[in-house]
Amino acid sequence: MARIVQKFGGTSVADVEHIRRAAERVKAEVECGNQVAVVVSAMAGVTNQLVDWVSAASPTYDPREYDVVVSTGEQVNCGLMALVLQEMGIPARSWLGWQIPLATTDAHGRARVHEVDIAGIAQQWSDGEVPVIAGFQGIGPDGRVTTLGRGGSDISAVALAATLGAERCDIFTDVDGVYTADPRIVAKARKLDKITYEEMLEMASQGARILQTRSVELAMKNGVRVHVRSSFEDLPGTLVVDEEEIVEQQVVSGIAYSRDEAKITLVQVPDRPGVAAAIFGPLADAGVNVDMIVQSTASDGKTTDITFTVAKSDFERCVELLEEARETLDFKALVPDSGIVKVSVIGVGMRSHAGVAQAMFRTLSEKGINIQAISTSEIKVSVLIAEEYAELALRALHTVYGLDAE
Amino acid sequence: MARIVQKFGGTSVADVEHIRRAAERVKAEVECGNQVAVVVSAMAGVTNQLVDWVSAASPTYDPREYDVVVSTGEQVNCGLMALVLQEMGIPARSWLGWQIPLATTDAHGRARVHEVDIAGIAQQWSDGEVPVIAGFQGIGPDGRVTTLGRGGSDISAVALAATLGAERCDIFTDVDGVYTADPRIVAKARKLDKITYEEMLEMASQGARILQTRSVELAMKNGVRVHVRSSFEDLPGTLVVDEEEIVEQQVVSGIAYSRDEAKITLVQVPDRPGVAAAIFGPLADAGVNVDMIVQSTASDGKTTDITFTVAKSDFERCVELLEEARETLDFKALVPDSGIVKVSVIGVGMRSHAGVAQAMFRTLSEKGINIQAISTSEIKVSVLIAEEYAELALRALHTVYGLDAE
Repeated sequence: MARIVQKFGGTSVADVEHIRRAAERVKAEVECGNQVAVVVSAMAGVTNQLVDWVSAASPTYDPREYDVVVSTGEQVNCGLMALVLQEMGIPARSWLGWQIPLATTDAHGRARVHEVDIAGIAQQWSDGEVPVIAGFQGIGPDGRVTTLGRGGSDISAVALAATLGAERCDIFTDVDGVYTADPRIVAKARKLDKITYEEMLEMASQGARILQTRSVELAMKNGVRVHVRSSFEDLPGTLVVDEEEIVEQQVVSGIAYSRDEAKITLVQVPDRPGVAAAIFGPLADAGVNVDMIVQSTASDGKTTDITFTVAKSDFERCVELLEEARETLDFKALVPDSGIVKVSVIGVGMRSHAGVAQAMFRTLSEKGINIQAISTSEIKVSVLIAEEYAELALRALHTVYGLDAE
Repeated sequence: MARIVQKFGGTSVADVEHIRRAAERVKAEVECGNQVAVVVSAMAGVTNQLVDWVSAASPTYDPREYDVVVSTGEQVNCGLMALVLQEMGIPARSWLGWQIPLATTDAHGRARVHEVDIAGIAQQWSDGEVPVIAGFQGIGPDGRVTTLGRGGSDISAVALAATLGAERCDIFTDVDGVYTADPRIVAKARKLDKITYEEMLEMASQGARILQTRSVELAMKNGVRVHVRSSFEDLPGTLVVDEEEIVEQQVVSGIAYSRDEAKITLVQVPDRPGVAAAIFGPLADAGVNVDMIVQSTASDGKTTDITFTVAKSDFERCVELLEEARETLDFKALVPDSGIVKVSVIGVGMRSHAGVAQAMFRTLSEKGINIQAISTSEIKVSVLIAEEYAELALRALHTVYGLDAE
């Protein structure tokens, strides 16, 4: 008898008929003699509607009230899932965040899980019943409803799986697994049977769509084996596991890309100590995350060009902030560019293999693609290129690293 | 400084724009220096949608899960109302049933209020803030969400007003008050400035649409002054108060009607002791409420015809139950008739005035309207007539009792 957490995303519980199909998956596990805890998201689209109402009610909304409103989508679905299971003859009951309780920090709208009390759920299992938990929501130290941020139901599921010591945490979603590259762009992309937590974190292009990033961190920290699988087909998906579980490790596991960044170049900034701090300090204070930074000293030796990227959602605000500080920073021009894409080659195998970055640069060069910035980590090499080359670069790199399907 | 509860029904909080208009009414009371507690319903139509989902998930649903699902509409709106108030510069926070707590019995789907803890709300008032309470919902002895039945937000409001010792409980709705008769039928109907609790309870035709019946009982029991008023116009509505508050009492306050009943006649039932018990016992056991009953002994002295009315929603089931018991009851024929209407003349003044019933019978007779059954209470005379005469009867009676507007 294994303990299994099954989490169903918005598209897999988009209406009562979908909930019924999801419940069949629960039933199958229950009939195998497993103890199953179910975590449900809101119906697809519902949370967006709720967020729109909140913004209409108050553009600068109080996040405590935001949480009261947006947590209702999951409440509806956990009630409906419990009802559908009961109708199938499986004793079930719903659990809201405050009932468990799933205690969180008081950072409303993006709370972190503090502690999960599993006594009630364990008792329900002892009684031969299936607990159905509303994802995304918890209760803060002030006794008010909190939410865990967008995609937070993944966090609920992983946190529960960790606390329950579950053998597996199934994440049912609208894709059937994690691929070596986005299959909509790279036709030869292959589904990965397994991927490490670290790689999954870097696979932002697909990854963030499939699994909420913080849920992967939480799974990694607690060694929760996460199974990303299709809601619609009963096939094995991708297991997200510890490096040690993957016997034959590829050097490169996948190619990711991100269209969510934009580039800003400050031309002819005086090249003196403290200039970087003067530029990036105010941005950090304003909550703008800067990703890649390239600094190139001009031939005159007195000024420097500084190029960096920020999230597209911060782009306009960032430009405004810099224009306001133009006199202080004393740059000659600000060149904004949102027509760029970040392409990354990812693999834990890189740690023990040299030449991965070199192969990337050579491949892009052969295709005539100019690299505008580079950043690296232990298991990733990222480059910034013009948006129009994104598909070409992805496909070429996919082939070079031997990832193409036969 | 007065304590006031303001409750906004579904049409008055149908979207964010309506919530904003409702919030203006709250603001006006706050600016008068009053302590206001706000109770909100779900957006019009939302609860029906939720109920439909529950029925689709499980036709014979577990009422505990029904409550989890259908209580979310009020949760959304109390969050939005708090946000809109904050946006107007009025400090506000939402309260869910379990947070107050508003403790109820465990009769899920139709729970009764057991106790309201007003400590949190009183504290919020002390802090100069406006509490916004999700109507319709509470928490049961098992720590689960309960709901108070359809229209239950009225009960929430009155229960709060009673516990808070509020000077007034405003019920904002889509009509501007209680009328002497349904103004859609009787053009000369007048809005009543005041009406007694007892009369309001009897004014089922309009009454139940305006104020949930149990909320009126609760108001009567606790002496809560209820002000039924329009959400859309800032005009005085109708005060529902104790008899003693109404100095100049009319003999008849209003004419009500109900199309929600259907008539069944059992022809030639053996006229022996125990026959009524044999007929109505099984109906009561099946939860069918019987309203009016008329028994007329046949000329043969051996059989009797029994006519009675039940709610239209129970009609088919009732006919089935009786047909099943046909042999036992030994009646000759069952004549169903759903083409009837119940017309009632209501007024606490009847207690001290004779001749009210007589005037009713004479008026209907003059118009050639046959009375099929009669029932009376201390403050009401009701007759059953053919549906086609409903308008004629209502208008004639309205004139006879001097209720017509000048």
